[in-house]
Amino acid sequence: MKLVSFSHNGRDSFGVCVGDRIVDIGRRYAGQFATLKDAIAGELFEVDFTVPAADAADPSIAEVRLLPPVPRPDKIICVGRNYRGHIAEAGLKLPDYPNLFVRLDNTLVAHGGALVRPQVSTSFDFEGELAVVIGKTARYVARDKALDYVFGYACFNDATLRDFQFDHSLTAGKNFEATGGFGPWIATSDEVGDPRELALTTLVNGTEMQHGHLKDLIFDIPYLISYVSQITTLSPGDILATGTPDGVGFVRNPPVWLSPGDEVEVRISRVGALANSVISSAGQAS
Amino acid sequence: MKLVSFSHNGRDSFGVCVGDRIVDIGRRYAGQFATLKDAIAGELFEVDFTVPAADAADPSIAEVRLLPPVPRPDKIICVGRNYRGHIAEAGLKLPDYPNLFVRLDNTLVAHGGALVRPQVSTSFDFEGELAVVIGKTARYVARDKALDYVFGYACFNDATLRDFQFDHSLTAGKNFEATGGFGPWIATSDEVGDPRELALTTLVNGTEMQHGHLKDLIFDIPYLISYVSQITTLSPGDILATGTPDGVGFVRNPPVWLSPGDEVEVRISRVGALANSVISSAGQAS
Repeated sequence: MKLVSFSHNGRDSFGVCVGDRIVDIGRRYAGQFATLKDAIAGELFEVDFTVPAADAADPSIAEVRLLPPVPRPDKIICVGRNYRGHIAEAGLKLPDYPNLFVRLDNTLVAHGGALVRPQVSTSFDFEGELAVVIGKTARYVARDKALDYVFGYACFNDATLRDFQFDHSLTAGKNFEATGGFGPWIATSDEVGDPRELALTTLVNGTEMQHGHLKDLIFDIPYLISYVSQITTLSPGDILATGTPDGVGFVRNPPVWLSPGDEVEVRISRVGALANSVISSAGQAS
Repeated sequence: MKLVSFSHNGRDSFGVCVGDRIVDIGRRYAGQFATLKDAIAGELFEVDFTVPAADAADPSIAEVRLLPPVPRPDKIICVGRNYRGHIAEAGLKLPDYPNLFVRLDNTLVAHGGALVRPQVSTSFDFEGELAVVIGKTARYVARDKALDYVFGYACFNDATLRDFQFDHSLTAGKNFEATGGFGPWIATSDEVGDPRELALTTLVNGTEMQHGHLKDLIFDIPYLISYVSQITTLSPGDILATGTPDGVGFVRNPPVWLSPGDEVEVRISRVGALANSVISSAGQAS
């Protein structure tokens, strides 16, 4: 299944994509599950779930405004430096442990929405990534059981203000509002299968900038889930962003920065394609 | 006013401390404000607010279990390296910008609760801090207006697993579950006055370990609010932890680590005193 959160006629809901329609699950389970996060937590989509037949009230995908598939995750935990190629291009040494950072939920923009380059920086860089969406409460999870806690996968653009990242703090570089792409949907784990078989491509204005394979993660998905679950309890709907492969903009000569009017796309096999435009912030630093 | 969130007879609420009683505001505004965060956002405590007279249903402070004053802040944004003395003791250079990091809300423990030292580390260190609680939505705020956005102040213990901080990532060192103290209450800004006049003391088992003055912040509170508001929209109930002065455990010879059975207290003049015990995690890393 491909699960979306969306806004339609002023109402937020969630549903399953079937062809070009969205079967509105939120409407059918109103009063029981307010959000996709609630439905995941309530185990609605377990093996005995059958997608209802579409009816006249179900919108087409084109009619709705997509939201981040989990609109307000409790935690967005990201990993830097997780592909050898990216570590080499950035001139870093191989890490002994995952380099974690947190993104705030208001950094996330849905498929079709605009990433916002703030007025205080022009070094806005793309980072195509696979995001893992947690399905069940996970604490002290062993690596060989870790994939049982995955609900599904989504495309993620962990876009970064490089000057803030390097001159201020990793957290500042990663947390400007509306700088991260997430979507278009969650492809459930049964549909995706083994995440090591996935390939990821990032395009800027149609030109391929990154191409990586999830089998090349330094810390693979079971490791990451196990590692993070030693630190904190992962909850349904939590996001783990797994790092970006080589090809990012700041290491290029000349550097490639995202500018207003650009289009960025993160494509992941069996998962989907996340497209975002880039605009400039209207807000003034005072 | 001193505002608390608490649990009493299985019900979560919030209220105003008056002597040794809590005037239960949540009960009086049931249906209007579910949490203290909601009441702050709804501007309940503006200048025309009068604390109701206590009645027989209002509990004493001793009867309740305190919760973090804002139980689930949208954002907990912390600043490292913000006192010259702490920078000197840690052998760091003066920063050009605040070094931000994020704590997850499940890292927070209320006054009277136990900080949890995980089984994977013994280098558990205290960091007494002043926390700023945001009162109004703040975006692109000028420094000379920034204090208008402060709802109040609380004591904060930004306790840290030093091995994870230095060998893994700042985020890992700061985000083990139940490692941060926050409370006992929010002292409102009208009661606290100029935060530069505050003094902070951290005690471990009654012995003074840190003593600092908020006037010695490298990046003062107006600067921090203005800076962070360039990055993200601050919301009512958001927390800014302002950094710790010198005297932390890891720079001592020998190092002082928090161990199960220890008691840590963060006292801030005009604000309050936050006391937490330390226990060992029962959870096993697998």
